[in-house]
Amino acid sequence: MSILVVGSVAFDSLETPSGKRERVLGGAATHFALAASFFTDVRVVGVVGADFLPEHERVLTEKGVDTKGIERAPGKSFHWTGNYLNDLNVATTLATDLNVFAEFQPKIPAEYADSEYLFLANIDPVLQLDVRKQMPNVKMVGGDTMNYWIGAHREKLLPVLRELDVLLINDAEAKMLSGESNAVKAAEKVLELGPKSLIMKFGEHGSAAFFSERSFADGVKRRPFRVHTIPLEEVVDPTGAGDSFAGGFFGYVASQGELTPEVFRTAMFYGSAMGSFAVEEFGTGRLERTTKADVETRFRELVELSHIKG
Amino acid sequence: MSILVVGSVAFDSLETPSGKRERVLGGAATHFALAASFFTDVRVVGVVGADFLPEHERVLTEKGVDTKGIERAPGKSFHWTGNYLNDLNVATTLATDLNVFAEFQPKIPAEYADSEYLFLANIDPVLQLDVRKQMPNVKMVGGDTMNYWIGAHREKLLPVLRELDVLLINDAEAKMLSGESNAVKAAEKVLELGPKSLIMKFGEHGSAAFFSERSFADGVKRRPFRVHTIPLEEVVDPTGAGDSFAGGFFGYVASQGELTPEVFRTAMFYGSAMGSFAVEEFGTGRLERTTKADVETRFRELVELSHIKG
Repeated sequence: MSILVVGSVAFDSLETPSGKRERVLGGAATHFALAASFFTDVRVVGVVGADFLPEHERVLTEKGVDTKGIERAPGKSFHWTGNYLNDLNVATTLATDLNVFAEFQPKIPAEYADSEYLFLANIDPVLQLDVRKQMPNVKMVGGDTMNYWIGAHREKLLPVLRELDVLLINDAEAKMLSGESNAVKAAEKVLELGPKSLIMKFGEHGSAAFFSERSFADGVKRRPFRVHTIPLEEVVDPTGAGDSFAGGFFGYVASQGELTPEVFRTAMFYGSAMGSFAVEEFGTGRLERTTKADVETRFRELVELSHIKG
Repeated sequence: MSILVVGSVAFDSLETPSGKRERVLGGAATHFALAASFFTDVRVVGVVGADFLPEHERVLTEKGVDTKGIERAPGKSFHWTGNYLNDLNVATTLATDLNVFAEFQPKIPAEYADSEYLFLANIDPVLQLDVRKQMPNVKMVGGDTMNYWIGAHREKLLPVLRELDVLLINDAEAKMLSGESNAVKAAEKVLELGPKSLIMKFGEHGSAAFFSERSFADGVKRRPFRVHTIPLEEVVDPTGAGDSFAGGFFGYVASQGELTPEVFRTAMFYGSAMGSFAVEEFGTGRLERTTKADVETRFRELVELSHIKG
């Protein structure tokens, strides 16, 4: 099964307690695609500038990611500058240079029309909805958003939420979207806004899935499910952890073809495994050299970490 | 198997987003004993004043807790006043009236000498060490402490740590004790100080066990193990959650007789189950009316929450 991801392909200049890097390859679609590539075919729709070189594209294509949907525009690629010096769970943005991304109008190549899974990474919800309408026949739609769209463009975001099978956001975003300070109450209110299921991320404390009666084909509402993160001695760069989680989650789901509760749960573990790789090096470094065997090892470590009979 | 717990039996006056209560029954030994009572025989050594009435003692004795070791002293019982208004994970102390607790000198009744498990709740480490020496033949020793002893009385605390089979502290305390900001590195340094195993608590995000090669009889060092908390729509009063976790954990271990990795893991789940009851009402209210069947139900909910095949 093929996943189409629409989102940013970018460069990040950042500083963490582990060091400082200039213009490492990043972007939500990049991290998502690399993580998902371990499980299924992935196609990327995005836009880059002249600074996106063959060496950057090769990071994706070497993992089998289809980059034909990455449009080239005159100018520079999206460039984020920030740090995680106060708290590894919270990014401080110093500069957001949208560059060619400012005028991004996603165009789905004709050969991507048969994609069965669609992931709408964090971009303007107007564009997310537009892409969704260009892909009416997908089997499942996942999406992300951020505090900016929740706070300043709620009315644009709401129609997107109604299109989603799974919304993946962090706890602060879920609380902002719902107006509730308790995570369980926040989740219930978010689900009332339309997404069939919600994955709420808690940074180093893992994530929780909250279900509605629309989550699975049998119409039965399940209790929440939670997954931990791998305990790591050093989180080098948290950028892209959430997108890598989403890629691992969605990639595994797409590889299974049918969304059962057990597939959902297993996918949460693969999501967490991919997120744990993402944070071990700056940019896409760790995901680039990850093997399928590494992924299986980390999956088993997460099971051992959480299951009474490991 | 019998557990002896030494610690505070107290009254708490507190305010949380759910409301305000004056002088509810509390204290680390109280919460610990109630939680452990679901699994094994529990004996309490502590001190109370004239304000500790038969109705308070009955809360413990109705669960089968042996209260003969609770000494009566002239004056008032320990009284803590505080709130959790800023953050449910962080207590703000408004007043600590030690009262009779200021002169507490734990005396172990002769009939408690055969206790096989010892839990040293958070009290002056000098007293913890003294109690430990009064009970040289116990099978297993657990202990708690707090930022005050770590910061101002580290030299008194260190000999206690070397006596512990399991140290239970929260992540901020572990980071303070070790000087490390990363939880995994902090755990390794804390284990070097002496405790055979460490349980690090993360409030609503559950807890993690870290092991040394001294944790189990086979001398093999295990990877960490983590347990979630039950997602709750309302945390009414977090006071005593950690002590209830410790009681559930230690109570289950004592009920099993032998500390294997699987017993340790299962005990973490029971600890989390007991902690989840503790926070649902003010003071000891919820633990008082909890049944063994409730405990089993919540244990199964934690398994379902965390295991791929629930």
